[in-house]
This record gives sequence, structure tokens and C-alpha cells, in this order.
Amino acid sequence: MLYFINDYSEGAHPEVLKRLVETNMEKLTGYGTDVYTESAAEKIREAIGVPDAKVYFISGGTQTNQLAIDSLLESYEGVISAASGHIMGHEAGAIEYTGHKAIALPHKEGKITAEAVQSYIDIFYADAHHDRMVFPGMVYISHPTEYGTLYTKKELEALSKVCRSNNIPLYLDGARLGYGIATPECDVTLKEIAQLCDAFYIGGTKVGALCGEALIFTKEEPSRFITRVKQHGALLAKGRLYGVQFDALFTDDLYFKISKNAIDTADRIRAALREKGYTFFLNTTTNQTFIVMENEQLKKFGEQVQYDFWERYDDNHTVIRLCTSWATKSEDVDALIELL
Amino acid sequence: MLYFINDYSEGAHPEVLKRLVETNMEKLTGYGTDVYTESAAEKIREAIGVPDAKVYFISGGTQTNQLAIDSLLESYEGVISAASGHIMGHEAGAIEYTGHKAIALPHKEGKITAEAVQSYIDIFYADAHHDRMVFPGMVYISHPTEYGTLYTKKELEALSKVCRSNNIPLYLDGARLGYGIATPECDVTLKEIAQLCDAFYIGGTKVGALCGEALIFTKEEPSRFITRVKQHGALLAKGRLYGVQFDALFTDDLYFKISKNAIDTADRIRAALREKGYTFFLNTTTNQTFIVMENEQLKKFGEQVQYDFWERYDDNHTVIRLCTSWATKSEDVDALIELL
Amino acid sequence: MLYFINDYSEGAHPEVLKRLVETNMEKLTGYGTDVYTESAAEKIREAIGVPDAKVYFISGGTQTNQLAIDSLLESYEGVISAASGHIMGHEAGAIEYTGHKAIALPHKEGKITAEAVQSYIDIFYADAHHDRMVFPGMVYISHPTEYGTLYTKKELEALSKVCRSNNIPLYLDGARLGYGIATPECDVTLKEIAQLCDAFYIGGTKVGALCGEALIFTKEEPSRFITRVKQHGALLAKGRLYGVQFDALFTDDLYFKISKNAIDTADRIRAALREKGYTFFLNTTTNQTFIVMENEQLKKFGEQVQYDFWERYDDNHTVIRLCTSWATKSEDVDALIELL
Amino acid sequence: MLYFINDYSEGAHPEVLKRLVETNMEKLTGYGTDVYTESAAEKIREAIGVPDAKVYFISGGTQTNQLAIDSLLESYEGVISAASGHIMGHEAGAIEYTGHKAIALPHKEGKITAEAVQSYIDIFYADAHHDRMVFPGMVYISHPTEYGTLYTKKELEALSKVCRSNNIPLYLDGARLGYGIATPECDVTLKEIAQLCDAFYIGGTKVGALCGEALIFTKEEPSRFITRVKQHGALLAKGRLYGVQFDALFTDDLYFKISKNAIDTADRIRAALREKGYTFFLNTTTNQTFIVMENEQLKKFGEQVQYDFWERYDDNHTVIRLCTSWATKSEDVDALIELL
Repeated sequence: MLYFINDYSEGAHPEVLKRLVETNMEKLTGYGTDVYTESAAEKIREAIGVPDAKVYFISGGTQTNQLAIDSLLESYEGVISAASGHIMGHEAGAIEYTGHKAIALPHKEGKITAEAVQSYIDIFYADAHHDRMVFPGMVYISHPTEYGTLYTKKELEALSKVCRSNNIPLYLDGARLGYGIATPECDVTLKEIAQLCDAFYIGGTKVGALCGEALIFTKEEPSRFITRVKQHGALLAKGRLYGVQFDALFTDDLYFKISKNAIDTADRIRAALREKGYTFFLNTTTNQTFIVMENEQLKKFGEQVQYDFWERYDDNHTVIRLCTSWATKSEDVDALIELL
Repeated sequence: MLYFINDYSEGAHPEVLKRLVETNMEKLTGYGTDVYTESAAEKIREAIGVPDAKVYFISGGTQTNQLAIDSLLESYEGVISAASGHIMGHEAGAIEYTGHKAIALPHKEGKITAEAVQSYIDIFYADAHHDRMVFPGMVYISHPTEYGTLYTKKELEALSKVCRSNNIPLYLDGARLGYGIATPECDVTLKEIAQLCDAFYIGGTKVGALCGEALIFTKEEPSRFITRVKQHGALLAKGRLYGVQFDALFTDDLYFKISKNAIDTADRIRAALREKGYTFFLNTTTNQTFIVMENEQLKKFGEQVQYDFWERYDDNHTVIRLCTSWATKSEDVDALIELL
Repeated sequence: MLYFINDYSEGAHPEVLKRLVETNMEKLTGYGTDVYTESAAEKIREAIGVPDAKVYFISGGTQTNQLAIDSLLESYEGVISAASGHIMGHEAGAIEYTGHKAIALPHKEGKITAEAVQSYIDIFYADAHHDRMVFPGMVYISHPTEYGTLYTKKELEALSKVCRSNNIPLYLDGARLGYGIATPECDVTLKEIAQLCDAFYIGGTKVGALCGEALIFTKEEPSRFITRVKQHGALLAKGRLYGVQFDALFTDDLYFKISKNAIDTADRIRAALREKGYTFFLNTTTNQTFIVMENEQLKKFGEQVQYDFWERYDDNHTVIRLCTSWATKSEDVDALIELL
Repeated sequence: MLYFINDYSEGAHPEVLKRLVETNMEKLTGYGTDVYTESAAEKIREAIGVPDAKVYFISGGTQTNQLAIDSLLESYEGVISAASGHIMGHEAGAIEYTGHKAIALPHKEGKITAEAVQSYIDIFYADAHHDRMVFPGMVYISHPTEYGTLYTKKELEALSKVCRSNNIPLYLDGARLGYGIATPECDVTLKEIAQLCDAFYIGGTKVGALCGEALIFTKEEPSRFITRVKQHGALLAKGRLYGVQFDALFTDDLYFKISKNAIDTADRIRAALREKGYTFFLNTTTNQTFIVMENEQLKKFGEQVQYDFWERYDDNHTVIRLCTSWATKSEDVDALIELL
């Protein structure tokens, strides 16, 4: 069986695991005060080009989103997101659990525009009753999006400008940020993202780590953030688990190098699909590829390939997602292409 | 420098780490549906003697307590705990964050009694205004306690009986449960604990794992618990991280064997302390030892030993805690004894 | 100046106020245990034909919705509502504040259909990832809706059937229920509504009371509901304030008689509008009338009439709402018609 | 039967009710934007001597405490209160419901001291683990207290000073503030209270109103407070209900004049009790009197007088509370004294 179902099927990148083994018996201080956590944070600050950024490590994407959004919002504020945003549907209401409305804007291939955000804000404040409504308190985007698409630099600049002119933070969910950055078509750098966003996270779970995301506040951080993390039950006693992994990932550009494998393998798959005349559901350049497959063919395909069901296309066709990752092997891509 | 400051200074037990390495590149399903998670749960069900117990793996103690308590309580209910309970002070209000009052009962060496619980409940229901008060909805105990003490079987039976006669669950925080079970003086078995409690967790973070606690509902489980875990941001995509570790810990009694090292080393330290005439702050038999040290001596001691400050004793003395763990080395104990 | 801006511009119906004055110096027990509260509840139970219904009085619509919805849902459940539902936009996120997602369905003139609800539920459970999504836990409708429209008996029966077959409660927001019932076109009785819904409230604030809504659970009530009310800060010490008012409103059908005035006056206004060729934004038969007015005309109109801005229609036209109530005077309607 | 059980047995003071009747059919704007609400706020600003204070009207004490405390605290902060504080026990966990720990300090006759507050704060910050604990974020006191006692000016000044030097707000629950001010022994004025506190409320429910408390922020107010009120479900559409009542209460010092009746009648009762040799449980000078009564005597007493059970004193004695209010009649006091 071939696995192209998601980007978290394996454990950690071997180099990351090696560092966990090597440092295992070192006696380190707890709760993220150890030397590896500090080193990882410092390397990330360098990588993003913000010397005084605040960096925290959190177990996974939902916990990170919940903590960041809850901390950045006042109680009467909500977060604006594409209707397709991860926080809107696939986090079991983790945002609402903290008391905040997730405000859905229509999306196009997973993206929202600066114009749509400004328009929402304009209409909100024009409403004479807005004092009895949920205030738009921040903007959430994901990059790459849940549809594998990327914001252009120009789009991000426009979103950043709208957020700043309305005095609300722009937050970027980077669960697959490495795969975005590693895509040749991506015209925005990590350093530019750090400048345009007020907060964002660099995903580890899907890009080489066993667990963990690096949450970054580029400007101000919420007051007493560590206490907030603890209050959410999200502070690991052995913070080293994150520290060592991210220290490894941000040593010698490992994070970016291993991300490239996902793009290279996805590009090979897309080339083969294109050549064989498959219908793309939408055009992507990152590690996620969405195609429309005829149901009978899909049945046979599914006997040899684990894929991700995306949605029903019509009575006879289905949209499926094929995912690559840092761990995708060339021979598995060969085998997949053979099957197409 | 010698380290006796806590029981989470190292990474994972080598055997646990070895299994993480061995299974690292296996392609496994996510969110706790993998074979190792199921195997670990099954081994735990066997170890506790409850074939249909529900077992979940959560990152750390605070997250586990928050999830278990929030899920077991109705919104108008609070949790009864010793004033010294971990949830009362050292979890940054994680229980209150979920909307519930933590109700403090006076403790003796970290323990509460069945009588005190029943008395609290009696007074509560006798109050004509109790409909406008927080209902006592469950009892939280830790075993070993934060003071390193243990409940006797008789005490646990009495607490269990009180809870059942009042129709509220008994929940046991087992952050250091291994160290409790491994103590010869402990007259209650894991299987008995499982019978007496409605929910409890077997701590991994302090007993051989990099992270993770095994939360167990021995009778009914809260509805849709996995969704609650996700909603709290506590569901790992790579659930294998917990599964593989606990599968290793519950293979060939590893969890209990490595726990024994903490007790053996602590016993050696206590014997030496006793011999040298030190004053014990309270008598413990688990991996935590509390002594009263003269401040001048402590200053010198602290130059060679990392210890945990517990509390001020008087103007000239301080209570300190010395901790051992699965990782404590015999030669470090020798060196410590030399210094005493 | 004429007032047709809303249905809460005056205080209480004189008969209601008279009873407050008459009973004012009686010494009554607190927190809703007084004889008037019990009498009011009993009269409501008779009016709705459910002898063992539970009746609670709450200050206003938002508090009532928040309490009812939060109490009827499990923490991982959300409430399905028309996108135009009052809870979706105009309650400042009161539902999300209690941790629950308000799930928007597209509406038609303020209404949702049984088919749309069933379809949402079907798609939800068909999603392989639904364990990590917010469960649809109840259905919220308003009757009359925020658009002044009414559900037909058939529509309500279909919604009720869908809810029961999916084992989730149907909750009806009756802020203007009196005005709905008093409308000749309304083909569903209060008794039928009580049979079809699991919970609903009979609005007092907009129908003759100074404040207060009667929240009714027709079947099971949430456990310890009074404690939940207190926990939300919504339990009045002088519960008599609600009791006396609702006792008056449900004596000799006062509630229904005074509701009729709103419909009679609205009907007269609508007849005049129709006669004079105004464009209706949508057809309503209750106390709210929505028309499209040319902006220049509206400017002059606004100098003599307080109306409610609803929305922009096009560059030259605006949708406005004209509201009547139990308090609308015939001479004011005459004057308004004169101005049209 | 005589009623001395509480201070909320009657409706509103007749003058207050008269104004509700007189203004009943005036067409007023909603949600607290009416002229009476503004007039009431202005009169209160004058009465407290803070021209730019922010004044809001909320239904009852629990709602007011919940809103004020939740709004003044960061999510990781708790409120320090006497263990006997109303928020600690008799509000069904309304504070915890909003996510905050209520931190109990030992009390003496319902009061806490500046020293105890400072000591708690000192110990908190001295704890090396305080980043993982609930931060002390404000101080809650009640005046008069739940025991009917009063803070002296000196005590309040000390508490105010401690709060300001620690940069946390001092909040005063004035459910019975009128009765405190009207007590000759009270050496602090309303204006001084306003200077010493950062927020407080002037109770209406127990002092002449049907419902409603005036919540005052003397310095900064929490951002978008009206939206927070709505989000809590606590914003009345007919805000006039509060406005008219408080406008009446603060016209010609009505609030203070009617408060005096409670003290005069309580003083007469206390004089009679003293003369007849009753044992006072504690000394009070406000409208609440606590005595120890022999159980057999109490049984007979209870057949003619509604009193409030306070607590068991010993096997043969009970502590009871006798309450007066603005509504207590001289002839009822005569009758009570006769019975003593």
C-alpha cells in the first residue's frame, strides 16, 4: 500500500530524532527554560529576521491557534477567517470554546482578500447596532491554505495594511509553512511574512517534528503568555521535547531542506497527472494536490493507495487529495505514477 | 552538580526512546487511531484489570486534569480537593478557566479524609441556599500526593464509598502513580485503585516518558470524549508519540520496574539522612523526601546539589525537597550521601 | 414626532403596571419562590397545555437564549440557526461566550427548512472527520422571525420531526410570540408550538412587560436550572418583578388581547401602504412591516417619523422597518397614514 | 407574622414606583440611551463627586459582580476576597464561570486587611513558580460586609493604598451601601469611597428599587463595556427600568433618606436586645443584627417572626440574623420588641 493520505504519517525526521536521542539523558530545567528551547528560539528569531520576537512552542495546531487567538482578542471580539479556515470547521469549536466567535468570510481557493476584510469592517461599523455585535478583532489566514494554495506577497501586503489601518492583528497559521516557503512559486520569504504578520506559527508536526509548533509574536506579545499557556493546560514539563526538535530543525536550514522534498515529489506527481490528462480540482504548487477522479477508477486506485477523500464532485466523480511530505520516498512516487 | 530537584530532568527512559526510534518511519494513522495507541490502551486495561476501561493519552498533568474534571462536571458543579492539591495552586487556574470552582478542603500531609468530604457535602445540602451555591460534583485526590504521601487502601476505600454514596466520581491524579505503586509501604494495588476510582491517570511525564499521561475512565466515560480533547486543543495529530511510549512502558512491566529505582534510591537517601540525624519535615516513602536544613548549611549544600525549595521553616531553617526518579543513578546517590 | 421604530419604546401595559403597584408592599419570598411567580407559571402551563412544563422567568431575550442554549448543549455541540437569527449577529457573541458555536444555515425571509437542517446533519455525520468538528446539538428558530415572517404549522411540524428523529431539541425564540399568535394568518396555536418544541420562550419585553421572558421547557429541563440561572448572574432577588407581570399578562388572556392591537395597527398601515403603491421588501403579517423607500422621500419622512433603518436597497432606495406594538395608538396610525 | 428575614421582601419604594408609573407611556430610546438613565448617571456622578465616572445599571448583585470582575481581570488573574465574600459562596460560581479563580483570604467579621492582601501578594511573587499560578488581579470587598460590619476609613485607605501600590483595582460590592452610609458609626463618605475604589456598585435591589445596581468605574472603564454587558446577556432593552428608578433614588437624596429608616429601626431592635440581655454574635451597626438564641426559645420565636437562620452556634443555640430595610415599619419593630 502506498500512502499519500496526509503529511503526518511518519514520526520525526531522523536528524531530529537523533538529537532527541543524543540529548536524552542531559539534565535540563523544565517548562521551556532549558538551553535547547532558548537556542531554538534564537535560531528562529534569526531565520525570521526579528531579533526581539517572542517564540513559544506549543504541541499542535489547534492548541496554538486557540492560545494565540484567545490571547490576542478582547472578550467581545471575534476572529475573521475564510469559511474554509481550519479554525472554522476542523478544530471542534476550539475558538468558540474560549468564548470567541469565528467570523466566516467567503473564500476563493481557501483565501480571503484585503478588500473583503475591509468591507466587512466597514459594514460592521456602519451598523448603528454594532455595539451589540461581535467586534472584528483580528484576521486569521493560513499559508499555505487548507486548499494548498498560497497568498502572493502582494496579497499579504494588502491584508497586512488593512489590519494595521484598522488596528487589529494579522495572524498566520503556518501548519505547512515550510512547504509554502519551499515552493518556487511562493514570492514571499519567511522574513517578509514575519514583517507582515503580528503573530504566526511555523508548523513542526507536519514538517519533520514528532509534535510541536513554534508560535511567534513579532511585535507585542500578550501579557504573561507563559501563564496563559499553563492555564490552557498546554505547558509541557519537559519543554526540551520541543526545544531539541526545533533546535535541530533550525540548524543548517534543515527545516527548509526537508520541506523541499515534499515539493519536489508533489511536482513529479503533478507532472505525471497532467501528462496523463487528469483533471485538477484546483491548481496548487505546494505539497497538496487535488484531482477529480472517476469513481470506478477511484475504487481500484484506493486498493493500492491511501488517499484523502476531499469532497463529492458529481454523481460519478470524487475530489481526492494527494499529500507529500518531508518523508515521501522517491520510489513511492515512482510506484504511484505507475498506477495513475 | 548533582540533581535532586525534580523528577522530570531527563528525557525518556532509553527503552521508551528506542521504541520511538524503531517505529519512527512506520506509516501510522493519526489522532490516536494507530496500532501502538490501541496496543498501549489494551496493555493498560490488562494492567488495571478493567477490560472495558476507556484509555486516552494526553500531553501532561494539567491538561489531563482540566479535561477530565471539566468533562466529568456539570457546569454548576465544582471539584473538591485538598487545599494542597496540584489543581488548587500550581495549574494557573486551569480548572477555573473551564468554568468550575475548585473547592478546597483542609489537608493533612496532602491528604483529605472521607469524613471531611462527607461533612462538606452534608453542610452543603443542609444550607437552605444551596441552590445558589456551587454543587460538590466530584472529588480530586493525588496519589502519591504533592507531599509525597500515600493514601492507605482503607482511606481510599472510604473515599470511594463516600463518593459512590453521594453519586459523584472519585478522580485520582497519578502524576507519580508508578512511584506510589513501587513503594513497599503502599498497600493498594493498581487494580484496586482502578476499582475504587471512577477516573484516574497514570503519569508518564514523571515516570519514563518524554510526555504523556494515560487518562482512564473505569466506568462510564464522558460523551464524545475525543471531540472534547480536540476542542481543548489537546489532540495530537501524531498520537503515536503517546501510543509508542506507553506501549513500551506497559510491556514487561517496564513502568513498574523503572519506578522501583526511584524508591530504592530515595530509600538509600532517607536512610543516610536518618543516620546523620537530619530532621524530616514529614515522613514519606515515595520518591520525594522533605527535610529541614539549617540555612548556612543549605547555602553550601546548594553549591553542589540542585534541590527544590519547599518552604521557609523558621528564621534559620528551610524545608527542602529531594527528588529521585527512574533516572537517578546510584553513583549520584553515593555522591549526595557523601555531602550530607 | 411619530414613533414606529421598535416595539419596546414604552414601559409596561397599564394593567401590568397596576398589578406591580397593587402588590408592591406585600412581603414576598425571594428568587422566584413567591406566589405570583408560581401563579404566573401555572397560568402559562395552562395556556400552553402542558401541565408539567417547567417555567422560568429571565430578564431579556439574549439572557434567555444564552441560558437555554448553553444548558441544552453539551460542550462540544453547537446550535443550528438561520444566518439571520438574533443569536447570530445581534447578541454580541453571547452564545460563543458560553463556549458554543452558532452554526449558520442560509435563510429565506428569516426562516430555515427541515430539509436544510437534515442535510446539514447528514453531511456532518458523513464527514469522516466529524469527531473533530462541532456536533449539531440543537436547532434555534425565531417565530415570528427577525424579518417578521411566520413559520407555518407544516413547517414547524417538519422541523420538529427532523429534530426528534436526530435526537436534538428544537428551541423557539418567542421574543414576539404574542404578535405571531395574534396574526390571523398564523396557522399554529400556542399549544401546538408547545407540543412541537422542546423549549421556547414567550416574550414579555416586547409584549407588555417592563422586562422579562417566560422560558419554558416542555419536556425535560436541564438539571439544576435555577443554579445555572444564578451562575449566569440572571436570578433576580425580587423575582416578584417577573411573577407579578406575567401573572397579569396571563390573566384573562391579556397577553393575547394586547398583542392583537399590534397586528390591527400594522394591518391598517400595510393597507395604506399597499393602496399608495409602496414597494414591500417582503410580505409580513405580524407587527413588523418592511418597505422600500426612495431616499429623498425618506429624508422628509424621517423628520416626522422615527423608523428603523433596515438596509440599503440600492443607490436611491432604502429598506426601512415600521413597527407597531401593544402600545401603538390609533391616532398615531392615522397621522402616519396621512404622511405616507 | 412579622418579617425580619431579609431586605428584599417588598417591591420598590413608593416614590420610585410612582416615577415608573408617571413615565410609563413616554416613548424612550432603548438599551440605556434614554434621558432618565443619563439623568440618573449624572446625579450619581454628582453624589460621588467624580464628574467623569462611568455609570452602568445592571439587574442584580451577582450579574454586576460577574461583569465587573470579569472585565477588570486578565484571563490569568483571580480576585482576592474574604472567604466570607458573597462571590465566594453564594453566587453559584459566577466568577469561576467566567474563568477566574476567587482567592479566599481569612476574614474577621467579614473583613480583610491591607496587610493580609499585601502578604498574599508578597508570598505569591516570592514563589519561584508563580508564573504557573493564578495572579492576584484585583481585590473585592463588600461594604457593609455580609456580616453587616463596616470598614473604617482608615482600613479602606490602607486597602486602597495596597491596591494602588500593587497596580491592581479595588472593587467594592455595595449591595447595601446605602445602609452603610446611613450608619452614624460609618466614618467614610460616599465621595471618599469613590476616591478610594477603582470600581464599586451602589445597590438598588436592597435599597428601594425593584431591581438594579449602579456599577461605577471611577477611573478607567474596561473597553467596550456595553458590548460586554450585552455579551453577558445583561443589557435590558428597556433600560428605562433602571434609569427611572435610580433617577428617583438620587433625587433629593431619597436613597440616603430611605436608608436611614433601616438603621433607625435596627438600632431600636438592638437597644431592646441589649436591654433584654441577648447575646450578640458580633457587633453591627448597620441593618443586619446577629444574635445567639436558645433553640427552644427560637422555635416559639419562629412562629411569629420570619428570621434568617445564620449558623448553628452549639447544641442548644443558633445564630440568627434580623434584617431591617427602607420598608421596615415602626409598628412591626414595636411588635418584635414585644416578643423578645
